[in-house]
Amino acid sequence: MEKIKVAIAGYGNLGRGVELAVRQNEDMELAAVFTRRSPESVKPLTEGVPVYSISDAQEHKDDADVLILCGGSANDLPVQTPELARYFNVIDSFDTHAKIPEHFANVDKASKESGHTAFISLGWDPGLFSLNRLYAESILPNGKSYTFWGRGVSQGHSDAVRRVKGVKRGIQYTCPIDDAIEQVRNGSRPDFTARQMHKRECFIVAEEGADKAAIENEIKSMKNYFDQYDTSVSFITEEEFERDHTAMPHGGFVIRSGLTGENEQTAQRIEYSLSLGSNPEFTGSVLICFARAVKRFADQGQTGCKTIFDIPPAYLSPRSAEQLRAALI
Amino acid sequence: MEKIKVAIAGYGNLGRGVELAVRQNEDMELAAVFTRRSPESVKPLTEGVPVYSISDAQEHKDDADVLILCGGSANDLPVQTPELARYFNVIDSFDTHAKIPEHFANVDKASKESGHTAFISLGWDPGLFSLNRLYAESILPNGKSYTFWGRGVSQGHSDAVRRVKGVKRGIQYTCPIDDAIEQVRNGSRPDFTARQMHKRECFIVAEEGADKAAIENEIKSMKNYFDQYDTSVSFITEEEFERDHTAMPHGGFVIRSGLTGENEQTAQRIEYSLSLGSNPEFTGSVLICFARAVKRFADQGQTGCKTIFDIPPAYLSPRSAEQLRAALI
Repeated sequence: MEKIKVAIAGYGNLGRGVELAVRQNEDMELAAVFTRRSPESVKPLTEGVPVYSISDAQEHKDDADVLILCGGSANDLPVQTPELARYFNVIDSFDTHAKIPEHFANVDKASKESGHTAFISLGWDPGLFSLNRLYAESILPNGKSYTFWGRGVSQGHSDAVRRVKGVKRGIQYTCPIDDAIEQVRNGSRPDFTARQMHKRECFIVAEEGADKAAIENEIKSMKNYFDQYDTSVSFITEEEFERDHTAMPHGGFVIRSGLTGENEQTAQRIEYSLSLGSNPEFTGSVLICFARAVKRFADQGQTGCKTIFDIPPAYLSPRSAEQLRAALI
Repeated sequence: MEKIKVAIAGYGNLGRGVELAVRQNEDMELAAVFTRRSPESVKPLTEGVPVYSISDAQEHKDDADVLILCGGSANDLPVQTPELARYFNVIDSFDTHAKIPEHFANVDKASKESGHTAFISLGWDPGLFSLNRLYAESILPNGKSYTFWGRGVSQGHSDAVRRVKGVKRGIQYTCPIDDAIEQVRNGSRPDFTARQMHKRECFIVAEEGADKAAIENEIKSMKNYFDQYDTSVSFITEEEFERDHTAMPHGGFVIRSGLTGENEQTAQRIEYSLSLGSNPEFTGSVLICFARAVKRFADQGQTGCKTIFDIPPAYLSPRSAEQLRAALI
């Protein structure tokens, strides 16, 4: 069997998560890594994998069946995905929800013109959580869906905390509020404020001599990031930070609570949850199983941009349709 | 907008669940009910819906876009689904796992010959649980999947209990064992025996003067049904039975516990769970949202037999691809 050749663009936490996922799938191999750094400075875990400058990507367009873009949604992907879809079948994890229609249109145009297949906004949210919102809403039209995130590290909020004067190191955990989850599970379908669904926990290593009360106050009152939430700020030592706060756990819940029956009196609940030891490793694993689907779409000549809603689930598995029917249905 | 015309074959608990689901979906209407009983004896909830003998189904083949078969897997569906796929686009909930490949082949042949679309083995298990086993296994290849059912009524086990001498009324609940679920959630990936995952609870109204000890003994030692499980047998009054045991709740959990990372040391968990006030109403709701997908496949000329693994998720929703991308991703 010929392996699916995967390339990675951007070798940070997510790129490394993708590389680790490739190693767990026998029908895949890592063909190349593209980077904006000096290629000599990047050492993939996988032996023998070439590292190229991303500006030379076009020259290597025939080296990979699928290119997985591991850059950021704010600045990298809006430019990179349409650009690289001119030369490769691509997957990205673009997660700026409000800009997905625009990003879709740009990537669709580029990939249709070049005859490639592109999947955007994959991962777990957007991605698996989107999928579960869709399935659950389609099954229970009279109902209400809730998404809770965490307990897990939010990169955006951690970055915001680190910009506060006097903060040496900092990390922010988004935490779902247990009581809110219980209310939803009990079928009460409330309208929550942001504060009622999530709280925020910050762990800070302060610079020597910094004003801790001022740091705490600045964090808690930060517009949009923290002011609409109950936030706790804990000051810890650098040793504690190293020991307890360098993993990247995450997770969350999509719950739909609905009603069926002659008088719409019967409570029905669908719940999907993730508990992730490492967010980038899990996201890498999601992207990699969709690489299989991209290859299949491309082999069928289905070009243009797709999302997780367009992909028949069987396309994600290395097993044949017959095997899947016999083993998993 | 022209509504999707749905017909139901078999007007028992599931047929009624399908009818109730049609009423919750504005793009659907109930076009006909087919029955093996005398048509005059069947009174659908929906006013004005014609009831026909199932033996006359062929004459009404143009009355419905999709026919939903609501018979039993043991005797009805193996015959009915291939037979009716000659005249209709069909959906069934065939759930005899071991015979799915054979049933698929029969339905595929009939529906391809007649130019129709058929979906088999839909519902929640098989169905949504199958789907979650597939997604989770594809994402976390190094892992182990567990399916727990309940607490809920098992028809097969309830029927078995009712065949015991001296039992006037009886019902059986399959119950997942909390400790086993906790072990899986904690990432220990054990190999369980049947007894370690589920227990069985029976509630019995005994005939007057019946030997209760003999009933309890016969149930607990019944081969395949009960002998491999810890089973409790409670004798209750007919009033208690009417009051507490006429609903048909069910539910369950699909949990995959997997590992990622450089040394496959990072624990990752995907969990899907259902908590259902009424099994037939929920199953009816699942079948009805797939009716939308059958219609779309049929309109595209995609004939033959499909399973839930073949169906792009977007096909289940009344919303357009643009709306879905904007609202749910």
